[in-house]
Amino acid sequence: MVERRLPVMPERTPVPLFDLVLVGATGDLALRKLFPALARRAAEGVLPDGSRITGVVRSGDSPEALKEHLGTKLREHGVADEDVRRLLPIVEFVKADIADAASLSGLAERLDDPNRVRAFYLATPPDRFIPASRALKSAGLLEGGTRLVLEKPLGQDLASARAINEAVAAVLPESQTYRIDHYLGKETVQNLLVLRFANTLFERSWSERDIDHVQITVAETVGLEARAGYYDKIGALRDMVQNHVLQLLCLFAIEPPNTLTADAIRDEKVRVLRALKPISGLDVLQKTVRGQYIRGSLDGSPVPGYAEELGRESGTETFVSLRCELETWRWAGVPIFLRTGKRMGSRYSEIVVTFRKLPHLIFPGQAGAAVEANRLVIRLQPNDGLQLQMMMKVPGSGRLKLVPRVLDLRYDTAFDERTPDAYERLLTDVIRGDQTLFMRRDEVETAWSFIDPIVEGWKEHYATPHRYVAGTSGPAQAVALIEREGRSWSDPELRV
Amino acid sequence: MVERRLPVMPERTPVPLFDLVLVGATGDLALRKLFPALARRAAEGVLPDGSRITGVVRSGDSPEALKEHLGTKLREHGVADEDVRRLLPIVEFVKADIADAASLSGLAERLDDPNRVRAFYLATPPDRFIPASRALKSAGLLEGGTRLVLEKPLGQDLASARAINEAVAAVLPESQTYRIDHYLGKETVQNLLVLRFANTLFERSWSERDIDHVQITVAETVGLEARAGYYDKIGALRDMVQNHVLQLLCLFAIEPPNTLTADAIRDEKVRVLRALKPISGLDVLQKTVRGQYIRGSLDGSPVPGYAEELGRESGTETFVSLRCELETWRWAGVPIFLRTGKRMGSRYSEIVVTFRKLPHLIFPGQAGAAVEANRLVIRLQPNDGLQLQMMMKVPGSGRLKLVPRVLDLRYDTAFDERTPDAYERLLTDVIRGDQTLFMRRDEVETAWSFIDPIVEGWKEHYATPHRYVAGTSGPAQAVALIEREGRSWSDPELRV
Repeated sequence: MVERRLPVMPERTPVPLFDLVLVGATGDLALRKLFPALARRAAEGVLPDGSRITGVVRSGDSPEALKEHLGTKLREHGVADEDVRRLLPIVEFVKADIADAASLSGLAERLDDPNRVRAFYLATPPDRFIPASRALKSAGLLEGGTRLVLEKPLGQDLASARAINEAVAAVLPESQTYRIDHYLGKETVQNLLVLRFANTLFERSWSERDIDHVQITVAETVGLEARAGYYDKIGALRDMVQNHVLQLLCLFAIEPPNTLTADAIRDEKVRVLRALKPISGLDVLQKTVRGQYIRGSLDGSPVPGYAEELGRESGTETFVSLRCELETWRWAGVPIFLRTGKRMGSRYSEIVVTFRKLPHLIFPGQAGAAVEANRLVIRLQPNDGLQLQMMMKVPGSGRLKLVPRVLDLRYDTAFDERTPDAYERLLTDVIRGDQTLFMRRDEVETAWSFIDPIVEGWKEHYATPHRYVAGTSGPAQAVALIEREGRSWSDPELRV
Repeated sequence: MVERRLPVMPERTPVPLFDLVLVGATGDLALRKLFPALARRAAEGVLPDGSRITGVVRSGDSPEALKEHLGTKLREHGVADEDVRRLLPIVEFVKADIADAASLSGLAERLDDPNRVRAFYLATPPDRFIPASRALKSAGLLEGGTRLVLEKPLGQDLASARAINEAVAAVLPESQTYRIDHYLGKETVQNLLVLRFANTLFERSWSERDIDHVQITVAETVGLEARAGYYDKIGALRDMVQNHVLQLLCLFAIEPPNTLTADAIRDEKVRVLRALKPISGLDVLQKTVRGQYIRGSLDGSPVPGYAEELGRESGTETFVSLRCELETWRWAGVPIFLRTGKRMGSRYSEIVVTFRKLPHLIFPGQAGAAVEANRLVIRLQPNDGLQLQMMMKVPGSGRLKLVPRVLDLRYDTAFDERTPDAYERLLTDVIRGDQTLFMRRDEVETAWSFIDPIVEGWKEHYATPHRYVAGTSGPAQAVALIEREGRSWSDPELRV
């Protein structure tokens, strides 16, 4: 029915005039994500004339050489030449040490317009957050509603996260602090709010009354990549679950907020995090599974194991699965299975909602034996969209036969609009002053309060990772975690 | 995901050995539907060797000429040559007057095997049903569990239907009487039972608690066609609503039967029919709309009006719309809008379930203004399948914008199996002795009890049909019928 569709007029409201300062401007995140996102928003006419982007680098090439390098990188990352040419004139590079107030005078001179929105984006390792915020304060750069954007990870446990948050709070109010979890900028994640609160059908069934259990999977195919030293200290639970996966769980499970304001939504998300039944002590052996990949193959090519990539043996998990519960009126008794891992068979993120089984079966014999529970798959990537698995009758005049089939909606075919990268939305939201898709301090800390006891439980009970072959869906113990209660992982490969 | 689908092994259980007697064997129904259905079932190996089909004709050509004519017609109706050659040997034509016991001796001689299932299919006008059943009884042909199949229409009001039913009941028990409404043989109609009782998701919402209203549309593009004299006496209400449309309503609205047996389902259907709030007297002016098409165009070609086709003015409706209610715990307060008509803009049958509106709107401004209620479209023909209309976020980083989009499942792409014609199932069900998809006496009579007062109300209050232009969706008054309570017809052309 696509051909009858009227075009949806795009909304291209320009943001206010701004000064955006990117710290870590030659880093991977800036070159791969932030600058391309800005180039695309500029191409759409959303960045008003006179807007300025200042890249801060500690040392290295001349500003001219850096600009040329940026242009090359933007083209490498798929930005059209004309869009590169539109962005570069509003970018300047400045040399400064963001953690040293004395070196920030050149930057302060450049940021001379008190009437424009000013934002600092710290695309740096987290150990720079505290000194950087103090230096910015000393240099007088945080006046007049300046916003500070912090990239994840926000610490590696509750204590370190709290230290960062306190140092930042000492120089800037929460309303000017933007903690990024780029998962929240993804279109499908935002669509979760729309799915739930602009539609009655699923919302009516969104509780223990109708839902049997929930699965959230964030599967990666990549291995250790560049951040080897960092990752091996952190592991999958803290690298992925504490932020992305729990954020998905929050948006899935929240009570309807009364309004669509940032704090109304974040209040509800914190309520979900606080309702997570703690997993600690011996519980970790029952409710969590750690895994680490060994050599295997992906797409038919051999890939090394984690220890080989790292260059030594390690007790760090590259896969983790949890069986969670929410102690709320809505979700009591509904297990929520989380899993995430590297070097899994395919790259995808999804939330699978399995509805309750039929209370009474009227279909005889073979037909009845085949009845599966309805499932709603909220696909985040790739091929984002919705799938609803229903039981259908096989056409034909023979004996009644039932099979599962899928009602399908893929965003890329449902919409002609380009799906923007998460950072495109997040960067303009910072400039617009919309905190909805950023994590509030209490969210981050409550998430760590749930994660820390698991890490401690693992240490206490010597829970070493189970091995899984690279290119598979994780260790057998993660299958056992769900199967021993008569439930099964829903893997995309097995759907019809 | 279609490529990962395992084939569904077809069930091809042969029916028991049978003698099927088609009365009216050279009529349109037999040549266009019944013989092609039998040929297809024969080709699938479902008709066991030795089965016999006897065509009864009153007069005319020799049996050999009739067989040749049958072969020609089968090919015309798309039956493959090899399947025609497989069917013809088991078909014989016999001359007899089915209403005259004395003329049935030849037939009786042929039906010499008491061990096989015997069925008479009266594909004749309904005025033959009473004499035919009496003659068959006199000729001793209804012994040993013989089945009698009656084509619709079963009378034209309660009195005439009851007369037929009583005459048939005098010679044959209800368990051997098969009243056909071929709509019940359609795959998607049967799928309604599967949709409801093999899936929890929709069933949990299948009541006044979650559903705002229901629409059932059976739209035809044909005009008067061959049956002019008959149709003009009957009109759309009695020709289409009394049987097809009310049957769809029944299957949509029934309580879950405890078992999938014929009588368990038919008991529940009768309960629905009995729960229909009567429409009579002045009510007909509020709750019904009659229409008659005038000249217009279809697919760009001019078509005449009903009166022109008929050759005279007429007060018969070719379109009817009703606003019904079911007085049950489940459906109280949920309006059910029915409409059917000839010469409408396109040919389709569907049930549209509109769920309740959002109880509270959190999306501000423009986004909120666009929120439509969720709709489930159960498409019966053409392109049968399911569509679920949801609200989605338009991708993009601009202001939040919501639009309706459709999760889609079309049977023809979801299944590789050929969708059989309704009569294929119904004919084999007769031979298997499965009455589930046939109308029981009380169903037929209860349906007439609802219809008759409407016809009387029309007469009493001179409710003449409103005119509508051929090729449109009916008279403006049918739009007013639903719009005056703030609801709207869901037309397939307007869906995205």
